Amino acid sequence: MSTTTTSVAAMADRIRAGSQVSLARGLTLVESRSDAATELLAEIWKDSGRAHVVGITGPAGSGKSTLVLRMAQEYLTRGMRVAVLAVDPSSTYSGGAILGDRIRMTELAGEKDVYIRSMASRGATGGLSRAVLDGIVLLDAAGFDVVILETVGVGQAEVDVISVAHTVLVVSVPGLGDDIQAIKAGLIEIADIHVVNKADRPGADLTVKQLRESLRLAHNLASKWDVPIQKVTAATGDGVAELLDETAKHRTWIGEHGALKDIERRNAATRIRWAAEALMAGRLRTGAPAFDAAVEALIAREEEPRQAAARLLTAMAVDPTDINGRGTR
Amino acid sequence: MSTTTTSVAAMADRIRAGSQVSLARGLTLVESRSDAATELLAEIWKDSGRAHVVGITGPAGSGKSTLVLRMAQEYLTRGMRVAVLAVDPSSTYSGGAILGDRIRMTELAGEKDVYIRSMASRGATGGLSRAVLDGIVLLDAAGFDVVILETVGVGQAEVDVISVAHTVLVVSVPGLGDDIQAIKAGLIEIADIHVVNKADRPGADLTVKQLRESLRLAHNLASKWDVPIQKVTAATGDGVAELLDETAKHRTWIGEHGALKDIERRNAATRIRWAAEALMAGRLRTGAPAFDAAVEALIAREEEPRQAAARLLTAMAVDPTDINGRGTR
Repeated sequence: MSTTTTSVAAMADRIRAGSQVSLARGLTLVESRSDAATELLAEIWKDSGRAHVVGITGPAGSGKSTLVLRMAQEYLTRGMRVAVLAVDPSSTYSGGAILGDRIRMTELAGEKDVYIRSMASRGATGGLSRAVLDGIVLLDAAGFDVVILETVGVGQAEVDVISVAHTVLVVSVPGLGDDIQAIKAGLIEIADIHVVNKADRPGADLTVKQLRESLRLAHNLASKWDVPIQKVTAATGDGVAELLDETAKHRTWIGEHGALKDIERRNAATRIRWAAEALMAGRLRTGAPAFDAAVEALIAREEEPRQAAARLLTAMAVDPTDINGRGTR
Repeated sequence: MSTTTTSVAAMADRIRAGSQVSLARGLTLVESRSDAATELLAEIWKDSGRAHVVGITGPAGSGKSTLVLRMAQEYLTRGMRVAVLAVDPSSTYSGGAILGDRIRMTELAGEKDVYIRSMASRGATGGLSRAVLDGIVLLDAAGFDVVILETVGVGQAEVDVISVAHTVLVVSVPGLGDDIQAIKAGLIEIADIHVVNKADRPGADLTVKQLRESLRLAHNLASKWDVPIQKVTAATGDGVAELLDETAKHRTWIGEHGALKDIERRNAATRIRWAAEALMAGRLRTGAPAFDAAVEALIAREEEPRQAAARLLTAMAVDPTDINGRGTR
């Protein structure tokens, strides 16, 4: 354990110092959900909490990849460091760059203030959400001012993933069908900002009008944030500066109106539950001496299940790093 | 809490004393998975662990219901008390008697040493397995010598449920098709005893032969139990006494060869994990003061998730009944 802790501490130092190689290794570690990943997250946790996490979702063909590229370039122009985390719950490929990333990486080659990474589901339910939330901590601690969380598809898994973001952009385009895809996909409710991409196309104003109408119908009275509809043309960069202004405005607004705190609370609550589950899974497994002893006590009727569980959880807490339950009883 | 504890203790007393009304209420409570259910199970746990749990599965049309009726009658003849728990993961109806039960109840009316109950899924994954395992504890503590666990269908959920039984009977019938349904349904591996029902029909010997052949192919070398194939005719009762003898023989065998202990260990391990999850869910929820405080500490970066989780689990263990986390920090 001490060797791992030492190398993890060194990795954390290098990530803080801005090493993209160490960051990449850290993200791979985080995807593995190993003990070392937990160590790294514990080590680096206090350095996180500063980045603005911007989620982007929208149907295939809405030009999200190009939009994210332009946004990243505009952030760089403004002297900000930006990371892109592209998530694809429907794909099991991970650990490298997907096609869109390669194109973007070419355009952004040599920029040390930008970092792009893909994450894909590894089959485990909720596994991607966890890897994403952990990945954001690393990128945040590495000093990126903005983390753009981009989803590839538009399903429930994407909505779950994107819900950890501070500001959610939903992208629509004119002419993909009679109706707005975002409305069909049930994305109206989660949007903090609506983006109409390819706004130079005919029908852009109709798309804006339809979005405005559906916003009026779906208006959430609890929120006082007035959801803007921003027209952009990612291909030329038109409207991207204004989109970044709206995004920054939203960040300021949620900070002033308690909504940021709500998101932070929800994410922190999720993290504590995951950490507790991980501690429990390590301790409450066949082969862990304390657990095996509790099982025998249960069979002998010396204890009932809740007592046994409570006792094991106490013992566990004595040394949280002793996840195998080999230490105290 | 004290009122609940008192009434739960009284219910436990009445269940131990053999009240079928209290038993029925207890089973309904257990299906609800409420705090009172946990209290009742804790109260009654030490009185359980004696019953022989016999699982019965097989395809629709194999005559399981009639077979279970005849088995119950034969157990009664032998001076044993028998409970039947009929589970249907594909149905969401519960809390009462299904059609087969009504017929059986009529035949067994007035018998105080027999008890029949249905349990159905309420939509929650794993919820039925838990209700069944808890239900067995109540029936066991109520003094039934045998608990027959009967599944209605033959899917993975049924296999999961039936795996908690000490002795698993898989029922086949001749003439339902070219092949043995049990083989098609992948039930060969889980059978401790194969039952060929409707053995007076033509083709019964062929069914026995096919089962014997597939047993030879699927033979689990790790187990030294020689899986018998018992022919019965549930309609007339032919072979049912012999089936009970084989079932009792299996119970003796697993007691002598460590297999009973393995099943008990697996079930006890499952119970401890469920109890720990329930303790955790109560404690690690928004609104519980200690949890809310931990969430704030996390956001303020005063603590990292694993520390917070470990601290909360310790606090929880101080008073396991304080599931709302209102007590110690």
